[in-house]
Amino acid sequence: MRQSQLFAKTVKSYPKDELSFNAQILIKAGFIDKVSAGVYTFLPLGLLTLNKICDIIRKEMNKIGGQEILMPALTPKNVWDQTGRWDNFDALFKLKGVNKKEYALGATHEEIITPLMKKFVFSYKELPVYIYQIQQKFRNELRAKSGLLRGREFLMKDLYSFHISEENLNNYYEKAQDAYFKIFDKCGLKDLTYLTFASGGVFAKYSHEFQTLSKAGEDTIYICDNCRIAVNKEIINEQKICPNCANSRLHKEKAIEVGNIFKLGTKFSNAFNFKYISQEGEQKDVIMGCYGMGPSRIMATIAEIFNDDKGIIWPEAVAPFRFHLISLNQNSQAEKLYQDLKKAGIEILYDDREDSSAGEKFADADLIGCPCRGVVSKKTLEKNSVEIKKRDSAKCEFIKLDKVIEFFA
Amino acid sequence: MRQSQLFAKTVKSYPKDELSFNAQILIKAGFIDKVSAGVYTFLPLGLLTLNKICDIIRKEMNKIGGQEILMPALTPKNVWDQTGRWDNFDALFKLKGVNKKEYALGATHEEIITPLMKKFVFSYKELPVYIYQIQQKFRNELRAKSGLLRGREFLMKDLYSFHISEENLNNYYEKAQDAYFKIFDKCGLKDLTYLTFASGGVFAKYSHEFQTLSKAGEDTIYICDNCRIAVNKEIINEQKICPNCANSRLHKEKAIEVGNIFKLGTKFSNAFNFKYISQEGEQKDVIMGCYGMGPSRIMATIAEIFNDDKGIIWPEAVAPFRFHLISLNQNSQAEKLYQDLKKAGIEILYDDREDSSAGEKFADADLIGCPCRGVVSKKTLEKNSVEIKKRDSAKCEFIKLDKVIEFFA
Repeated sequence: MRQSQLFAKTVKSYPKDELSFNAQILIKAGFIDKVSAGVYTFLPLGLLTLNKICDIIRKEMNKIGGQEILMPALTPKNVWDQTGRWDNFDALFKLKGVNKKEYALGATHEEIITPLMKKFVFSYKELPVYIYQIQQKFRNELRAKSGLLRGREFLMKDLYSFHISEENLNNYYEKAQDAYFKIFDKCGLKDLTYLTFASGGVFAKYSHEFQTLSKAGEDTIYICDNCRIAVNKEIINEQKICPNCANSRLHKEKAIEVGNIFKLGTKFSNAFNFKYISQEGEQKDVIMGCYGMGPSRIMATIAEIFNDDKGIIWPEAVAPFRFHLISLNQNSQAEKLYQDLKKAGIEILYDDREDSSAGEKFADADLIGCPCRGVVSKKTLEKNSVEIKKRDSAKCEFIKLDKVIEFFA
Repeated sequence: MRQSQLFAKTVKSYPKDELSFNAQILIKAGFIDKVSAGVYTFLPLGLLTLNKICDIIRKEMNKIGGQEILMPALTPKNVWDQTGRWDNFDALFKLKGVNKKEYALGATHEEIITPLMKKFVFSYKELPVYIYQIQQKFRNELRAKSGLLRGREFLMKDLYSFHISEENLNNYYEKAQDAYFKIFDKCGLKDLTYLTFASGGVFAKYSHEFQTLSKAGEDTIYICDNCRIAVNKEIINEQKICPNCANSRLHKEKAIEVGNIFKLGTKFSNAFNFKYISQEGEQKDVIMGCYGMGPSRIMATIAEIFNDDKGIIWPEAVAPFRFHLISLNQNSQAEKLYQDLKKAGIEILYDDREDSSAGEKFADADLIGCPCRGVVSKKTLEKNSVEIKKRDSAKCEFIKLDKVIEFFA
């Protein structure tokens, strides 16, 4: 893409009421725009990164058998009444339509997926089954001051699993954990992310969160370095003992919840009377699990963690572009390189702006944070080269113009 | 994909209150599920088709310079107040959040895009610019009885263009018309779709709709065969004369509005005081256009038009799969063919179900409506072949197993 065409430019300032670092830097770098508290527009660069995160998630969900669907945001009151959550779910947006019909904006989708599956699943032969969507969710948050970390509208991947037995659920629950860590690995967050024991429910003693260490985190966790798990402060026992290995030397950290998985058991299948016929011909309760992950929250977490005083440093897999090519008044040679790299399938942002200074171009490249920057200038062309610098390194190297595609291969 | 794994099966019945043919057949074929009036879930097959339509649209919007963004559904009251549409926009869903903050669910996005562009566009040098999104819209429709043709929640592509002059807008407006017809062509609708004069506004005498002939249509149009345009009944003059060529022999048809484009002029730029500095250094009003198209409505239109008494007949470009392979108790040979075709990148639905009869499998294939069906049976294997039949033809042909990939190339 040509930077001269990109309407959403980097900006010097951000809204005064924007207190969170992730939103500040993403606004400055031209990735998002604030519409109101907790509500953002994804600009071209932001949407590219968001879509990359979604694709990483989608791939891993498909690998563990997930079937993708798309449920609506507008959900009728009656299904929430059936589970008792119309009045009890925290932060549900409610509204009225024609004929006083009441709706909630989907904050989660157990109330939609369970009756849906009941229409299609009758026998043990149809289980287990795993369904997910990537879709906008809405929560009427009291405070929405954490940027993309706590949106009133935000993107969510929610997968729901359906099983004949607790054992079968437990197996899948572990598979999902592996898939989650693969996603965090791709996004550069794995080393900072801890499987964290959190409050369970009637069915299971614990649920599990994936907590990524960050001072911007709203959660406090206690980490056991012995078994590399953590415990959410909300459920830590007085003795502060690891529930996994009984180690008592835990240390406290701030963290961002980038995912959570939950054994729902029969809570929702009972509410909707969703049963299956077992191999023995008996009616039995379907056992459920749910698996949440917020792509926009992951994007914010990456921005919180991977940055320096000049801007964002995107991990390669989620960068809007792999290569940021800067022309310093050498547009004919840079143009050729741009075309060649585009043809070779390399994702490239080309700073072809004629009315920007070298300083502005370098500052923008650092702020936007593509993994690799290349400069075409008089000086580099004397060497028939482009000067390439990784965003996370100070080292520059000259690469011959006809070797650049190879360099990225 | 293996049909044995596909949770969303074809169904014999649909909700009694579902009166529209498109929703009936899409529910029967396992593409969508009804959540409440005008609100649907897209099941795996439906989502595949919907995404294909979106990709066709996206490609053409990118070709005419569109930059993709993603605006929120939750939009604050103040921007709607500023244009006077909080009270006047038909069918706006309104809701209250914490601290009595009022929102509308986005039914269109002029109120969001205009202040956004005002933050980035200051000079004639930054114009024209074209921004679009593909995003869920919400309308509090009084009647939602037309299935996906009139949803309370529905997917929409909305592009907004910004210009320095009316002439510049007019040029782009024609480009957009061409792009729209390319999309309808890909979707199989072009021959049935008419550029239709509709009511304009203060700025332009007419807007234009794209109306596809169908008895399910909610609109009535008058077609001029002379110049192949149409006029919406709402604005037809008493003399029923074509506004384009003055021909008076127009004929009446029912049609579905599959797209509409509108010269907004300065209506929204004035509301938000969005001006640019001209080449002469003067402050001038930005001139706007908007360009809507509903991917889910297009999907419904295709289902309304391309079908027979056995099911849907998807045009190749929007079919969930290109090839529907049926195994009649010959799973080892069919499995090999499935794997080979998958490896060759051919989108394939493989009916590997062991507990379904041949009759059920054929009926499902016709109902789901992939463009091409192949059968592997004892009979076909005697000829070392698969029996291939196009969905829109009665003719069968035997293709040698090792020539099937070639057949699809």
